Amino acid sequence: MRLLTLGVSAAALMMAGAASAEEGMWTFDNFPISRANQQMGTSIDQAWLDRVRLSSVRLTTGCSAGFVSGEGLIFTNQHCIRTCVQNLSTPQVQYNETGFTPRSRDEEQRCQGMQAEVLIDISDVTEQMRTAGAGLDGQAFTRARDAEAARIEAEACEGRDELRCQVVSLYRGGQFMLYTFRKYEDVRLAFAPEEIASSFGGDLDNFSFPRYALDGAFLRAYENGQPAVTPNHFRWNPSAPQPDQPVFVSGTPGATQRLLTQAQLYTIRDITMPMDQILSSELRGRLIRFAEESDENRFIAATALYGVENNFKRFTGRMRALIDADFMGRRQAAEDEFRARVRADQALVNEVGDPWAALEAIQPVYAQLYPAASMLDQRAGGGSALFSHALTLVRAAQELPRASAERLPEFADSRLPLLRQRLFAATPVYASLNEIQLSWWLSKTREVLTVDDERVRAILGRESPEAMAARLASGSRLGDPDYRRALFEGGMAAIEASDDPMIQFVLRIEPILRTVRTEWQERVQAPTDQASERLARARFAVYGTDIYPDATGTLRLSYGRVEGWTYDGRTVEPRTFFSGLFERATGAPPFNVAPRIEAARERIDMNAVVNMSVSTDTIGGSSGSPAINAAGEIIGANFDSTVLTQRNAYGYDINVNRSVIVTAQVMTEALRNIYDMPHLLEELGVDHGN
Amino acid sequence: MRLLTLGVSAAALMMAGAASAEEGMWTFDNFPISRANQQMGTSIDQAWLDRVRLSSVRLTTGCSAGFVSGEGLIFTNQHCIRTCVQNLSTPQVQYNETGFTPRSRDEEQRCQGMQAEVLIDISDVTEQMRTAGAGLDGQAFTRARDAEAARIEAEACEGRDELRCQVVSLYRGGQFMLYTFRKYEDVRLAFAPEEIASSFGGDLDNFSFPRYALDGAFLRAYENGQPAVTPNHFRWNPSAPQPDQPVFVSGTPGATQRLLTQAQLYTIRDITMPMDQILSSELRGRLIRFAEESDENRFIAATALYGVENNFKRFTGRMRALIDADFMGRRQAAEDEFRARVRADQALVNEVGDPWAALEAIQPVYAQLYPAASMLDQRAGGGSALFSHALTLVRAAQELPRASAERLPEFADSRLPLLRQRLFAATPVYASLNEIQLSWWLSKTREVLTVDDERVRAILGRESPEAMAARLASGSRLGDPDYRRALFEGGMAAIEASDDPMIQFVLRIEPILRTVRTEWQERVQAPTDQASERLARARFAVYGTDIYPDATGTLRLSYGRVEGWTYDGRTVEPRTFFSGLFERATGAPPFNVAPRIEAARERIDMNAVVNMSVSTDTIGGSSGSPAINAAGEIIGANFDSTVLTQRNAYGYDINVNRSVIVTAQVMTEALRNIYDMPHLLEELGVDHGN
Repeated sequence: MRLLTLGVSAAALMMAGAASAEEGMWTFDNFPISRANQQMGTSIDQAWLDRVRLSSVRLTTGCSAGFVSGEGLIFTNQHCIRTCVQNLSTPQVQYNETGFTPRSRDEEQRCQGMQAEVLIDISDVTEQMRTAGAGLDGQAFTRARDAEAARIEAEACEGRDELRCQVVSLYRGGQFMLYTFRKYEDVRLAFAPEEIASSFGGDLDNFSFPRYALDGAFLRAYENGQPAVTPNHFRWNPSAPQPDQPVFVSGTPGATQRLLTQAQLYTIRDITMPMDQILSSELRGRLIRFAEESDENRFIAATALYGVENNFKRFTGRMRALIDADFMGRRQAAEDEFRARVRADQALVNEVGDPWAALEAIQPVYAQLYPAASMLDQRAGGGSALFSHALTLVRAAQELPRASAERLPEFADSRLPLLRQRLFAATPVYASLNEIQLSWWLSKTREVLTVDDERVRAILGRESPEAMAARLASGSRLGDPDYRRALFEGGMAAIEASDDPMIQFVLRIEPILRTVRTEWQERVQAPTDQASERLARARFAVYGTDIYPDATGTLRLSYGRVEGWTYDGRTVEPRTFFSGLFERATGAPPFNVAPRIEAARERIDMNAVVNMSVSTDTIGGSSGSPAINAAGEIIGANFDSTVLTQRNAYGYDINVNRSVIVTAQVMTEALRNIYDMPHLLEELGVDHGN
Repeated sequence: MRLLTLGVSAAALMMAGAASAEEGMWTFDNFPISRANQQMGTSIDQAWLDRVRLSSVRLTTGCSAGFVSGEGLIFTNQHCIRTCVQNLSTPQVQYNETGFTPRSRDEEQRCQGMQAEVLIDISDVTEQMRTAGAGLDGQAFTRARDAEAARIEAEACEGRDELRCQVVSLYRGGQFMLYTFRKYEDVRLAFAPEEIASSFGGDLDNFSFPRYALDGAFLRAYENGQPAVTPNHFRWNPSAPQPDQPVFVSGTPGATQRLLTQAQLYTIRDITMPMDQILSSELRGRLIRFAEESDENRFIAATALYGVENNFKRFTGRMRALIDADFMGRRQAAEDEFRARVRADQALVNEVGDPWAALEAIQPVYAQLYPAASMLDQRAGGGSALFSHALTLVRAAQELPRASAERLPEFADSRLPLLRQRLFAATPVYASLNEIQLSWWLSKTREVLTVDDERVRAILGRESPEAMAARLASGSRLGDPDYRRALFEGGMAAIEASDDPMIQFVLRIEPILRTVRTEWQERVQAPTDQASERLARARFAVYGTDIYPDATGTLRLSYGRVEGWTYDGRTVEPRTFFSGLFERATGAPPFNVAPRIEAARERIDMNAVVNMSVSTDTIGGSSGSPAINAAGEIIGANFDSTVLTQRNAYGYDINVNRSVIVTAQVMTEALRNIYDMPHLLEELGVDHGN
């Protein structure tokens, strides 16, 4: 790994007047070591950073995790492996209700489609990427850069099947980095508590604190059918975390928008958020009613409903930030100051022009094209797995005959291994759920774009959305992974010959979806990327390199303390204890105590710290991130934040920003006194009490 | 009737630069006769206005209508009597699917709970109302004025059972008027087409044009079991309306917010609209799925779902206006100009102060209290008829023992006749629908106010919203009108002795709801009313009386022309013809042709004008309004507008504001050639073709 020597001092100053010690999701090659040590009273060094990085894990399901033994044991959140639990279950055997507690490693079961990755190298490819896009605009710009990224990835990983190479954009195009990962394609479930234990309080307590969630689970990486050898791992520390204790969080936060201009945020406030939240709410209502119809439906809908509600609540917090006059005012002041400093530097103006004006000019186009881009590209299919498989198969048949650089970027050679792993994963597909998702998507597409839109007319023909959804969902064989593999390997000939109604439907409408995607890239994405890169250059020129990039699903380290908060006259203590779980329980779902916890009540240490709030800077995707003490030991896993914290998509606010963490202490207690997992306790190096 | 002699000239100028000839929902005592005649080329006079007023009907279900014969025949929209059709139907006999086509008057059936009213007198009571509130603030102010209004009403209608007296606020408290109505409590259904004929295109074509909806129906007012004698009525004109023809619309538009300040509108944009639309969408999703479960459920959910979708689309149009920079910019300019003119007049400033600042200062309180006010007062019960009956009964038992002036305003003596009529109406109640509404309301109340809110805890106890909703809906006997009557007449003793779970639930939580309502009135409603009245005084001082008041469900007259429009590069012609219905039909609901229309296809005049767009100024509540030609003849009934027109809640925009009207011509064609209703044709004075 070539470490970049960017300066690391002073404040990040994303938001004038609001910059704070704890702000920042730092890349490992630009972590402010001395500042953190000074503020936290710690003494971490480069070796500490390297150990943490090599012990940290990214899960391809959009979560973070950490190795906790030399034999591939991984600690993460239960909600990060929720889909795996659902996939391993049937309406008859529901591990979500019973917990998954194998008596030994032999009973650990594979999480289909999940891959674990460790970041082993970072190198700068900014110049190559810039050169590839130079002089180009619109779709040509996007395609040339996509092709260059895929080329760099393929070259770097050539002949190294155990690696994954990924070009990542940082600072909204201010830097491009090649990240190289050691990957583990065989990941198995080693322990999960009952879902009512891991998500006590359900959607109502989600994104809140105080909290009483055993949101922890264990996976194990395998190689060649054996537990992977993982000498780089965290030491498990089961002692009680203390208030004000320094905490580092190492993980892969998904996406922040802190570098967006105010004009871009107003589009989110006025256009995308209301549309997305309103549409999601209707799907939520359909799923809630569907789930109420029978126990089987409740099981089938669980993961989809959880996903909808989790996003809904996240965005609720963001909407509040976007209409918060103080918050937006501070952000405006920071933009005004930045803009004034650029304007005062004529040489810089000559170089970057006025990217704010350029971005503002894109917003009406964004608003105009977003409804179609959302319905017919970004959320096409409404979450239906059958639709998603069909689209992958049809496009694979179209794209794969071309040279790698000529394909849609997700079909470049360097991305195929993960694509195949996901496509061929033997995960259950339920026609009834797919019908709900398709019916919602088709009917809302017609409503949003209007019944007279020619794309809508072409998609629906004379069929109603409801009838079409029923026909496609009930008639498709794409739930069968063997059939998907046969179609993938058979190419366009097999696709065209297929009588699968979903395949034929997607084959027919794919040109419509592609046109929408192309127009969005041409008129919104490419000009936004170009203006954002000019903005990034201006930002480096004015503020130097002592800033962190927006989160992009890449590994970051943030730091803070075990700390409560006071807001709106209410003070919240930073730790919750097992006794509080029983006090909060009403007996009515989702406030019922898990049966196995209830059964163990007499044995449980009521003073064990269940969850804690920490002032670290995290966001969705940080779930499962190892929470680490100054000695580099794992003391918990980040699993949530609060509704108020959701504003950190747009800016960090020390007064309310809190990560919510499940402790290693409570997980130890659970393994020992509730779920009886002595082999895991032994592996973690703690007394198993027997 | 004492006609007020307010000036009637010049433009209304609600929005600087946007005032338009057609703008204005004018009261009949302040109609700009000469301006309208000049602009329309008509020659209407006071006698014309009086005849139109006395032929116009308000339905207490929130719609407008008109007398069209001397024997009580009333023309309105099908969607205005949709609830009546639903109430007269059962899952076995569904008039919504078959149409309601009695062969003679003997078969006409009563619409329970509906009352028809004709405005016969207007008098000014502003001084009495001002005096009643003088020197008071908050809840005391509200209560004193409510009591005074009830006193005026009771005094004016004393001993006149055939009248209804109502004090109405105009210009947001700038004027108070006593409106006296002749009422008809026995209203029967005389004709309704199938619902797929009246709402062809369903929710998708709702609020759109071109349009092909036979949204017309006939009622008949009865007195003492006989058709009412109604010498004041419109002459029915079945000829084809022509482009550019002048049209007057006489009806009772429900509510506009054109006199709100920008600060008030921003609260609607940021707080109330997103919350309302998001919550409604979830209910919509639950109802959609419920309706899909069986034919019976589809029937049961129909009216509730229609109501949710209709409001949702209305507010969608409003949200677009609130984020339209041009539209809001023009409104801001008008406010700036008005405010500058006030500021330049020190005497006026001394009189009215700064009502804009006062209203702005209320907005944070509004935002803070709105969630509870919405969930626990304004939409308490979630639309459940059982809950609504229980709340009326419990509060009646609490309030009626007090003197009229001391009661909640809806229980004042003058309002009891209509309250009793509604409460005792024998309308069907479905437990399954009530359960959906209650479950949604309880769970969303908990979500919005949070599970830790003490009111939420008190309401739910340890029960889940779902279990509570099921228990209340399935166990309540309040669907039985005799039981409701017994509880009403038995007073608090009967209420307390009742074992009805809904009664006991509401009895238990009523104090919580009342506290929320009181706080809202004290901290939001009363100060808003007081500041708005000062604003109204300023408005009269600056612009004189040549303005119209915001719509408040009182009778108004607007005028315009049969006219299409051009927007976003698309030109729309103002009339649709029967042939177009068959061209638009796909066969799949909601674009299927009604069976009786299909059966009559060969007999139908394909050139008959089905619907037309007119530049009159209308809004929700205007549905059913007689559309009248210069001669005072009825040529149709207003039934809709467009999504773009919804901005007219906040300001009229001549470029896009269009009312959508079903013609007397197509209704004549339907009665003659589709539904075979010769006795109605004869009564309307047109050839019945047999």
